[in-house]
Amino acid sequence: MALNQEREQCNLNQESLTSNLHELLFPKVPLSRVREIKEQVIKFPDMVYPRSSYFDNREDHIKRSVKFGIAWRKFSSSNSLTTEEYDISLRSLHGLHPLSLNFIFVIPSLQIQGTEEQFNHWFPRINSLEIIGCYAQTELGHGSNIRGIETTAHYDHQSQEFIFNSPTIKSYKWWIGALGLCANHALIIAQLWVKGKCFGPHAFFIPIRDLNSHQTLQGVEIGEIGPKIGLNHMDNGYLKLDNYRVNKFCMLNRFSKINSAGDYELHDRNSIKILYLSLVMSRVGIASGAWFSLSIGLTIAIRYSIIRRQFTDPEFPDQEKKLLDYQIQQYKLFRPLGFLYGGVFCRKRILEYAFAAKKEVEMKSGRGLDLAHGIGSLFKVFMTKETLEGIESARVSCGGHGYSMLSGLPSLYTNYLPSVTYEGDNSILAMQAIKYIAGLKVKKCPEIFAFLYCPPVIPAGNADDFTFIIHCFEAVARLRVNNLLQKYVKISHSCTNKEKIWSNYLQVQGIEAAESVFYALFHKFYIEGIANLTDPKNKQAISELFLLYSSDILYKYKGDLVFLGVPSRKLEEVREKGLKAFDNVRKNALGLIEAFEIQDEVLNSDIGKKQGCPYESLYTSAKTLNPISNNDRLAKEIKALFNPKL
Amino acid sequence: MALNQEREQCNLNQESLTSNLHELLFPKVPLSRVREIKEQVIKFPDMVYPRSSYFDNREDHIKRSVKFGIAWRKFSSSNSLTTEEYDISLRSLHGLHPLSLNFIFVIPSLQIQGTEEQFNHWFPRINSLEIIGCYAQTELGHGSNIRGIETTAHYDHQSQEFIFNSPTIKSYKWWIGALGLCANHALIIAQLWVKGKCFGPHAFFIPIRDLNSHQTLQGVEIGEIGPKIGLNHMDNGYLKLDNYRVNKFCMLNRFSKINSAGDYELHDRNSIKILYLSLVMSRVGIASGAWFSLSIGLTIAIRYSIIRRQFTDPEFPDQEKKLLDYQIQQYKLFRPLGFLYGGVFCRKRILEYAFAAKKEVEMKSGRGLDLAHGIGSLFKVFMTKETLEGIESARVSCGGHGYSMLSGLPSLYTNYLPSVTYEGDNSILAMQAIKYIAGLKVKKCPEIFAFLYCPPVIPAGNADDFTFIIHCFEAVARLRVNNLLQKYVKISHSCTNKEKIWSNYLQVQGIEAAESVFYALFHKFYIEGIANLTDPKNKQAISELFLLYSSDILYKYKGDLVFLGVPSRKLEEVREKGLKAFDNVRKNALGLIEAFEIQDEVLNSDIGKKQGCPYESLYTSAKTLNPISNNDRLAKEIKALFNPKL
Repeated sequence: MALNQEREQCNLNQESLTSNLHELLFPKVPLSRVREIKEQVIKFPDMVYPRSSYFDNREDHIKRSVKFGIAWRKFSSSNSLTTEEYDISLRSLHGLHPLSLNFIFVIPSLQIQGTEEQFNHWFPRINSLEIIGCYAQTELGHGSNIRGIETTAHYDHQSQEFIFNSPTIKSYKWWIGALGLCANHALIIAQLWVKGKCFGPHAFFIPIRDLNSHQTLQGVEIGEIGPKIGLNHMDNGYLKLDNYRVNKFCMLNRFSKINSAGDYELHDRNSIKILYLSLVMSRVGIASGAWFSLSIGLTIAIRYSIIRRQFTDPEFPDQEKKLLDYQIQQYKLFRPLGFLYGGVFCRKRILEYAFAAKKEVEMKSGRGLDLAHGIGSLFKVFMTKETLEGIESARVSCGGHGYSMLSGLPSLYTNYLPSVTYEGDNSILAMQAIKYIAGLKVKKCPEIFAFLYCPPVIPAGNADDFTFIIHCFEAVARLRVNNLLQKYVKISHSCTNKEKIWSNYLQVQGIEAAESVFYALFHKFYIEGIANLTDPKNKQAISELFLLYSSDILYKYKGDLVFLGVPSRKLEEVREKGLKAFDNVRKNALGLIEAFEIQDEVLNSDIGKKQGCPYESLYTSAKTLNPISNNDRLAKEIKALFNPKL
Repeated sequence: MALNQEREQCNLNQESLTSNLHELLFPKVPLSRVREIKEQVIKFPDMVYPRSSYFDNREDHIKRSVKFGIAWRKFSSSNSLTTEEYDISLRSLHGLHPLSLNFIFVIPSLQIQGTEEQFNHWFPRINSLEIIGCYAQTELGHGSNIRGIETTAHYDHQSQEFIFNSPTIKSYKWWIGALGLCANHALIIAQLWVKGKCFGPHAFFIPIRDLNSHQTLQGVEIGEIGPKIGLNHMDNGYLKLDNYRVNKFCMLNRFSKINSAGDYELHDRNSIKILYLSLVMSRVGIASGAWFSLSIGLTIAIRYSIIRRQFTDPEFPDQEKKLLDYQIQQYKLFRPLGFLYGGVFCRKRILEYAFAAKKEVEMKSGRGLDLAHGIGSLFKVFMTKETLEGIESARVSCGGHGYSMLSGLPSLYTNYLPSVTYEGDNSILAMQAIKYIAGLKVKKCPEIFAFLYCPPVIPAGNADDFTFIIHCFEAVARLRVNNLLQKYVKISHSCTNKEKIWSNYLQVQGIEAAESVFYALFHKFYIEGIANLTDPKNKQAISELFLLYSSDILYKYKGDLVFLGVPSRKLEEVREKGLKAFDNVRKNALGLIEAFEIQDEVLNSDIGKKQGCPYESLYTSAKTLNPISNNDRLAKEIKALFNPKL
């Protein structure tokens, strides 16, 4: 069998590689336990999406997803998993489902922003699935800009209630996951008004459907917002409130409250930092979870490219050539594979910065939060961008069959797609990151960004010397950040509005500069990760992969590097070394991706199974699972449409 | 109203611009007639997809699409349209539908490869919709490689029949549009075997379903292959043949036949050229039709970006800033807008080359066919690539709402997506193009590629001088093609297998070289097109757009250009001029895209309508059209899933 042959020819220490990867991904859980959980998960009822799920209509798809969410809750509580084991159980299968938002956003919000009394009031009922929550922040006319939110909560001291309203059509809550059909409570963000004064956006936890009948409550209008390009198992909804009254207990009171005199009281000025931290953590979470979707895509595409053959093999004219033996196919798959490995190494470092910041906020000290925000934003943007490109590259590399849902690749792609938009649109976040970084010139610069403000040196060393490569990336980032600052100063002579300069004149180059800083850090973390590997075969294999990847990125910066004084000839040499690395990576490609041990049940793909057989699988699915296949009733209805004839 | 204000502030001669564009797109039809047809089309029953079509399940979607196809046939025959008017009527709405393949592939194949008798036998019955055809070439295991096809047609002289078989699972016909449910005949490509000898792939037109009952015939198995990322209104099918016998009349006999002695006879050695021409024409058709999808995407996104506001406007702190006033939003939309205009100018030139080739093939003279193949492949690849990127850029620029099907953008994107794969995968075609182009070094080089083999000169002139820009693109293309040839020679010292050199070592750089040649031609045709404009305001506006677009592309070639001796400072200057052009393009953006006059019925978008009102439209659709919105039965079923509790 083609795949087994490939497995045998890999020059890797496979078990050690898998072990190293899993130590990075789940540092607190031994590999044997990771494997055990993964095995249990796929045997647990409702936890696996069968291939037939691709034929679901929206209604069935949502129901299946709800069942999955419930099963996942059952599984994790019956096995009393630790936090990290819990993450393994979730990562083993699908990402978001209607219940997950409850756990990602609602519970943490109650925990962070609610009092202990409030948390204890709601949490057990959420945990028992009596209360199904949703997180209602985004509005029809407002996305990333929380200050612009228009929903109002007016406090009525007489009745001790808040009166909620959606004053304009733009203020309807929109895109709210789990709201459309599932939720009976909403963690809602609204402008708080007390005695005629607005105190800005605040959080409230309010009932929206009757707990027994599940009917929408009086004063509340709820609907489902319709199909999307992906995530159609999620019931995104809208919410319109019309003089809807809720007892004052619904306001989350840890940082502020309405006192007994009916006045607004702010208790804790650290609150902003705590909210800010939760934003940072959610972005870090997105960046550090990117490996999962990409490893699925590459497992499918690399396996398929080994089985699929096309055009006569010039060396063996009686057979067709494996797709994976074409250089361009290798490029489409190995470049994202190179990114995937780098991403796993980076992940560890970003999490360190995030947890350091968390500790500082808890200790109310330091400036680690700003740093974590800068790094978190930067990595959220470019990790999701390259991950998405990598998944799409894997999908396209499978030709026609990558267009079929049965390959597993279309839904992987379209479900990952919104990650470049949600939790801070990538363009906005990249600008926030670069503005933070550019601001460090005049502040005390954290160690990690110090290279940007060092005196420039011309990178030197051998073409395939990793230090030379890192120095090149650093030099480009330094140049770009510096050019950006110079341009800012220049424009500020004729335009005094600082925000206008950034948003009207510096976004294109600002995002380019942010990207170059990202790549400098990414490659630095990448080689640090390689240095920590102990098995010489694996170290060699991943070093080749690094060279393939980094030389390709570096080549795109050739213009800047030549300008900086690096000889063009040398950059061509780096590129040639990178292209030469293709052959070695080719040999180990299957082993490198299979070290992630993504199970067939997770891939849910007809063309990417461990045992191969893509054609047999596609045929079986089309023949036996497709409700419109071999459907006499439908064929006759279609035929009838052609009459009367023209 | 925001859109009307923008319309008024444009500095364009709008009617003249629309007129110029339409002369390029539909040169034989006066603008007044184009408008008349477009108005008629949207009034014709079943010709418009209503917004509710986004809620269709696959079954309804296919039926709607079939009805559209029938309506379109009725419309075009009842109005006795000319070929170009016919194209307008189709372009006015959706692209592919199950009946369209009949007209795009089946009828032309019968015309080109069938005898007059055969054509006259089938055509009237196809035209009356008694026969519904499909084009069955692709197999489960074979895409672009026609020679590798495995379906067999063995001639049985005794019964004067062909016996069709699908000998392996890889040989099942797969992906065949209209086969799944609609077709009762298949134009099938199979290996012809006569008296124990294989004569290679030939075309046959065979019945597959009963004309009356629509039942699958004995020996034929048909199914539908399942859902895809897009084009789900198309019933792509599979076909398995088991000793299926059809009278010898089914073989298309214009170029070859089985004679009365039961032997194979080839009559016309020009046949390959004619088949080859039809491939070239279909690729040219894809490249020249790209403007349509992109103009839809940009109309929606530019309008929405004018209405949508986000974050406080630094200049007017009491309101939010229009999305279109952010530089990065402009970049996301104006770069594809610049490409769109260039594409319309190029379109004219590519069609000229294709029609010249067609004439030559008909006259059996000249080498125009190779040239048309080279240009057609090159433009198919990079026109679809940039169009797709442009549509996706438009979609992402709409943030969350671009993720909703109701914006019209997801289906626009996913339906366009396969164009980079079908009719020759882009990687394969780019390699074919560059191999043709590289081969011209030692052949008589057609005028259009002569610049590649001229002695190199360092581009000179002012930074915003169009000739300087063109010379830069030409110099990069020359460098890359030359480097490719040198690398080929170098590798050939150690590897003598020519095909292996190309497929194992030169694909990455080959495709890069192809791209640079494309851009050299694209920009050349672009400025020729601008030169032909007469209205000074429009000429100025499109020149600004050209500068914005071309400077961005050119900047990516900075490394090569600096190597070639163009001063880095000058390239930075070109870029600055390009960035300065943003303000002027911003002013005219709405007018530039609305010159395409895409109707609301064609956009089918809640966020891109001529009169605006995106929020009202989204709300109405979600509330009134969505079957799972406000659905009590479903909400209760979902609620029931949460019991029994944990």
